[in-house]
Amino acid sequence: MKKRNCFIGQSGGPTVAINASLAGIIHACKESQQFEHVYGMVNGIMGLLESRYIDLLELFDNQEHLDQLMHSPAMYLGSCRYKLPHFQDDPQTYERLFHTFQQLNITDFYYIGGNDSMDTVAKLSAYANTIQSSIRFVGIPKTIDNDLMGTDHTPGFGSAAKYVATSMLEIAYDSSIYKLDAVTIVEIMGRNAGWLTAASALARTQCNEAPDLIYLPEVPFSTEKFLDDIREVFRHKKNIIIAVSEGIKNENGEYLDSDSKYTKRDAFGHVLHSGTGKVLESLVYQEFKCKVRSIELNVLQRCAMHIASKVDLEESFQIGEAAVQASMAGQTGIMMTFERLQNQPYQIKCSYQDVLKIANLEQRIPVEWINDAHNDITPELYNYLIPLIQGEVTVQFENGIPCYSNISHLRYK
Amino acid sequence: MKKRNCFIGQSGGPTVAINASLAGIIHACKESQQFEHVYGMVNGIMGLLESRYIDLLELFDNQEHLDQLMHSPAMYLGSCRYKLPHFQDDPQTYERLFHTFQQLNITDFYYIGGNDSMDTVAKLSAYANTIQSSIRFVGIPKTIDNDLMGTDHTPGFGSAAKYVATSMLEIAYDSSIYKLDAVTIVEIMGRNAGWLTAASALARTQCNEAPDLIYLPEVPFSTEKFLDDIREVFRHKKNIIIAVSEGIKNENGEYLDSDSKYTKRDAFGHVLHSGTGKVLESLVYQEFKCKVRSIELNVLQRCAMHIASKVDLEESFQIGEAAVQASMAGQTGIMMTFERLQNQPYQIKCSYQDVLKIANLEQRIPVEWINDAHNDITPELYNYLIPLIQGEVTVQFENGIPCYSNISHLRYK
Repeated sequence: MKKRNCFIGQSGGPTVAINASLAGIIHACKESQQFEHVYGMVNGIMGLLESRYIDLLELFDNQEHLDQLMHSPAMYLGSCRYKLPHFQDDPQTYERLFHTFQQLNITDFYYIGGNDSMDTVAKLSAYANTIQSSIRFVGIPKTIDNDLMGTDHTPGFGSAAKYVATSMLEIAYDSSIYKLDAVTIVEIMGRNAGWLTAASALARTQCNEAPDLIYLPEVPFSTEKFLDDIREVFRHKKNIIIAVSEGIKNENGEYLDSDSKYTKRDAFGHVLHSGTGKVLESLVYQEFKCKVRSIELNVLQRCAMHIASKVDLEESFQIGEAAVQASMAGQTGIMMTFERLQNQPYQIKCSYQDVLKIANLEQRIPVEWINDAHNDITPELYNYLIPLIQGEVTVQFENGIPCYSNISHLRYK
Repeated sequence: MKKRNCFIGQSGGPTVAINASLAGIIHACKESQQFEHVYGMVNGIMGLLESRYIDLLELFDNQEHLDQLMHSPAMYLGSCRYKLPHFQDDPQTYERLFHTFQQLNITDFYYIGGNDSMDTVAKLSAYANTIQSSIRFVGIPKTIDNDLMGTDHTPGFGSAAKYVATSMLEIAYDSSIYKLDAVTIVEIMGRNAGWLTAASALARTQCNEAPDLIYLPEVPFSTEKFLDDIREVFRHKKNIIIAVSEGIKNENGEYLDSDSKYTKRDAFGHVLHSGTGKVLESLVYQEFKCKVRSIELNVLQRCAMHIASKVDLEESFQIGEAAVQASMAGQTGIMMTFERLQNQPYQIKCSYQDVLKIANLEQRIPVEWINDAHNDITPELYNYLIPLIQGEVTVQFENGIPCYSNISHLRYK
C-alpha cells in the first residue's frame, strides 16, 4: 500500500540542471512504489501558500516525458524569491503550510535551490521539530555560482561552466581574425564567487591561449594593475582576451559600476548599471586607444541547455534520487551534497549534511587557487573544474529548435 | 598535368559557415585533380599585399582535417576590413597584386565575403579584363545579416538564425519562472536588415509564444507605439519577451542609442553606445516600473558553431564547390548564389550572377513580409526562414570543449 505523499519545489534562479534533479526525485518516488502523490509546488513555497500545485506522477507517467524534463532548461515548476519569515515573527504562515501538509498527508518535502532555499528547509524542519511533525525536509542544492558550502560542487555549475568555456573558445576564434591590437572583455556571472569566471580557463587548448587574463571577485581589483597587466600581454601578442567576473570590487569593496567616474545615468538621473565589462571597456579604450569590445554572457550561462554538461545532468539526476532515499531512511533538515572520492578517474558519491551548516553561508574560491599576480587561476583549480564539464547531452530538436517540456502552466494572465 | 593554381581569401566579419565554404573550395580543387597549389591568403587581400599566404593542400591533406575545418567557427584564414582603391586612384596596388598572381601562375581567385568583398571581386575582374589577364575571379557570399542581393539567402545566415531562435527559446524558458510583470528585451544583430531579428520568431512552438513583439529596422520605430504595444500585451499576459534589431531607427532615420534623451556618456564626455536594448530597457522601466532586462546576443550569434544549422553548413560547402566548377568553366566577375527551387520539400541549387549586380547593394526584408502593426513578421517570412535552420551538426569535443581547427597562424606578436 502506498502511504507516502510528497511536495517538490524549485526556488531561486534557474540552471539547466535543476529539472534533472526534479526528474531524479520523480523517478525515485516511482521506483520506490511507496508514493501515492508527488505534488509539485508551482512557484515554490510562495505558490504553495496560494495552494498552487500540480500532480507530477500524472504529468510524468512515462519515461519519455521524464527524459525530456531532464533535458529542459530553467525551472519546470517555476520559482520564487521568497524568504520564509522567522516563526516568531509570523507563526500563521507556518500554520497554513503545515495545515496543507496535513490535509494532503504529506510525508516528505523536497526543495531544490540555493542559499535562500536551504534557509527555507532549515526553518521548516526546525518548526516541524517543535510540533512533533514527522515530515522530512530535504534540500537539494543547485546554483550556477557553485557557492554553497558543504558540497564538492553544486548541480548546475558544470553546465554553466561548459557554456562559459565553450563560449570563451568561440569568442577567441571570433576575435582572432583581424591583425590589429584588440582587447575583448568577457563579463561572466558571479557577484561574490568567481567559480564560473575561473571556468573560462577550461577553454585553453593546444590551439587556444585565451583567456589571457582572469579577474575574480575573491581578490581586490586594481584598475592600475589591470592596465599594467594588459600592457604586459601586449608585449608579446596583439589580441588579448580577458575573463572578468561581474562581481570584481576594488580595495574598498566597491563594485566598479558604482564608481562615480565611469557611472552612466539616464535622462532621469538614475544610475544605469551598465556592467563591469562596459566600465572596463571604457577604461581600456581610454588607455590604449585600440579596438575594445565587451561581451556580457548574460542569462544564457544558466539556460543554454543545448550545451549542457553530461556529467552535470547525470549527477543532478542522481542527487535527486539520493534525496528520496535519504528522506525515506528518516533523514530531515539536511541538504544533499556531493563528495569527490577521487579526481582521476573522477568519482563522486552523494551524501548529505545538516542544512544549518550550509544555509546562508557562501563558498568562495580559496585564495591559494588564485595565482600570485591575481590575474589567473592555479593548476589545482583547473584540475578541480575540468571533470565537471565532461560529456555532451543529446537534446531533441523539432523543426530546427530544441524540444523542451511544456511549461504553459507558468503562463500568467 | 596539374596546371591550375588558385588563391582563396576570406574577408569581412566571421560566420560559423565561412570555413565550410573554404572546405568546399579546397575539396573541389582536390577532386578536380587540376590544381597544383591552393593558396590561402592570410587576412584577405591585405595579407596578400604583404605576401602572407599559406599552402592549403599541404595543410588539409586528409579528410579528417577538412571535416574539422568545416566545423570550425570564425575564419581560418583571418580577415581584413580593406576596401580595394579604385584603379585610377592607385594603379600600383593592382600591379603588385597581379605581379604576385603572375609569379605563382594563378589561374583562379576565390573570395568569400560580404558586400565589400564582392566589390573587391568586381574591381579585380574589371582590371583583369583591361590587361587581358585570364585569371577568373569568383565571389562566394557569406554574412549572418542575409543582406546580399541576387541570392535567395546567404551562407552563414541559417546558423546565426538557428542560434537566435534557440537562444530566444531558452531565454523564454528562463524568463518564465517568476509570477510577476516582466519585460525581457533581446537585442539582435543587423544594423540595416532585420532578417536575423525576424528569425527569433522561429522559437515559437506549441509550448512557447515568445517573442511577443518583434521590431525590425525596415520600418520606422516609434517609442510611443512601442510602449502602447507592451501595454496591450500586458492585458493578457504577465511576462513579455521582445526581439529587437540593434538597427531600429525613428522616423528621422536616427538610431535610438544616439538619441540625446537617453544617451550615456563616460567621464570624458564620449557617447557610450550602450545599445538599443539598454535604451529600451530604461524606457520600459520608466513607463511600467516592472522588472526589465535587456540581453544583447552579441558575437556568439556569428561564432556559436556548437549550435550551427546543418542545412547552412552543407549549403556553404556546396557553394564553395560550385565556385570552383564555375571558374573552371570559364566564369569570372561573378558571385555564387542560391536559387530556391521549391519550399516543400525545401530544395535549392547553386548558381551565379554578375558581381556588379550585387556589390555595394543591400537586400532588406520586403515590407509586405512585416505585419501591418509593424511589430511582427508574416507567415510568408516564417516559411521563408524555417528551412534554413534545419538539422544539427556533430561537433567533435575534446576534454569537454569543442575541438576546432588550429588557427595559431593568426597569432601576431
